[in-house]
Amino acid sequence: MNIENYIRDIQDFPKPGIVFKDITPLLANHEAIEACLQLLINDLKEKKIDKVVGVESRGFFFGMLLAQKLNAGFIPVRKPRKLPFETISASYELEYGTDNLEIHIDAIQKGERILIHDDVLATGGTAKAVCELVEKLGGEIVQCNFLMELSFLNGREKLKGKDIFAALTY
Amino acid sequence: MNIENYIRDIQDFPKPGIVFKDITPLLANHEAIEACLQLLINDLKEKKIDKVVGVESRGFFFGMLLAQKLNAGFIPVRKPRKLPFETISASYELEYGTDNLEIHIDAIQKGERILIHDDVLATGGTAKAVCELVEKLGGEIVQCNFLMELSFLNGREKLKGKDIFAALTY
Repeated sequence: MNIENYIRDIQDFPKPGIVFKDITPLLANHEAIEACLQLLINDLKEKKIDKVVGVESRGFFFGMLLAQKLNAGFIPVRKPRKLPFETISASYELEYGTDNLEIHIDAIQKGERILIHDDVLATGGTAKAVCELVEKLGGEIVQCNFLMELSFLNGREKLKGKDIFAALTY
Repeated sequence: MNIENYIRDIQDFPKPGIVFKDITPLLANHEAIEACLQLLINDLKEKKIDKVVGVESRGFFFGMLLAQKLNAGFIPVRKPRKLPFETISASYELEYGTDNLEIHIDAIQKGERILIHDDVLATGGTAKAVCELVEKLGGEIVQCNFLMELSFLNGREKLKGKDIFAALTY
């Protein structure tokens, strides 16, 4: 099964000039979910993972499945004021200005082995902020894991020294 | 395992006077995820489910696991302007004013058997809007499925005629 067949291009979303990769046809198909999950797991079965960190909100989909498959816990990283307990935050750049991501201060114990998952690696700004959050809490990042990488945006440059995996590359 | 032990009360979130049920300790624990998933599945293994509809964004966590476990597809219902393809919307009441939820117009085929999942059944306003969306697309709602029900808010009254299941009741 070629999971690319289940990802469709949406022109001019969220704004003119952007081609958005829509994964909802993939999510809607059970066999495509399974095939995608197998790809995402890659060599992780041989690496002990304590917790999977999923990034709001499209990182929640496969982040949760990865956690279950790897016998790990799941930690949501969310936008400001969404997490109810005490948090730490990290900022990342938007086209104009910055925004923040948050994680609960008790989400990760020092030395825990962490898989970071999100749907897309684009400029790498979000992923870098998530790495900062995980490392502030003492987590050890085993891999930054993505459903797809938009390689022309050079996101890898912001994640130097990290193991990076993407199921699909555009 | 008692999954209630993994849900903590947060006072005055998101605003003064509200006690928020925080499920992040449950998500962080692999055994608690498994136990919770077993509860949520209840009698669904005997009922064919074509698609699980999960509500943004805490309904994505177990919605995705339920879809995988039931060999079903997953459909996200999201807040306005988050879904990239053509959508239909339904409104629900907030304390002051209304808000909308959206679903892709091609998410459900007529006659498909649908499980609706969200984390909390509170006043039932959200769930009722999701039922409207599913039925507008011709889906047959097999069950409205929740991690927890806040029974003092009488959400069931808005979902009359529907099969309602909650893993926990407060």
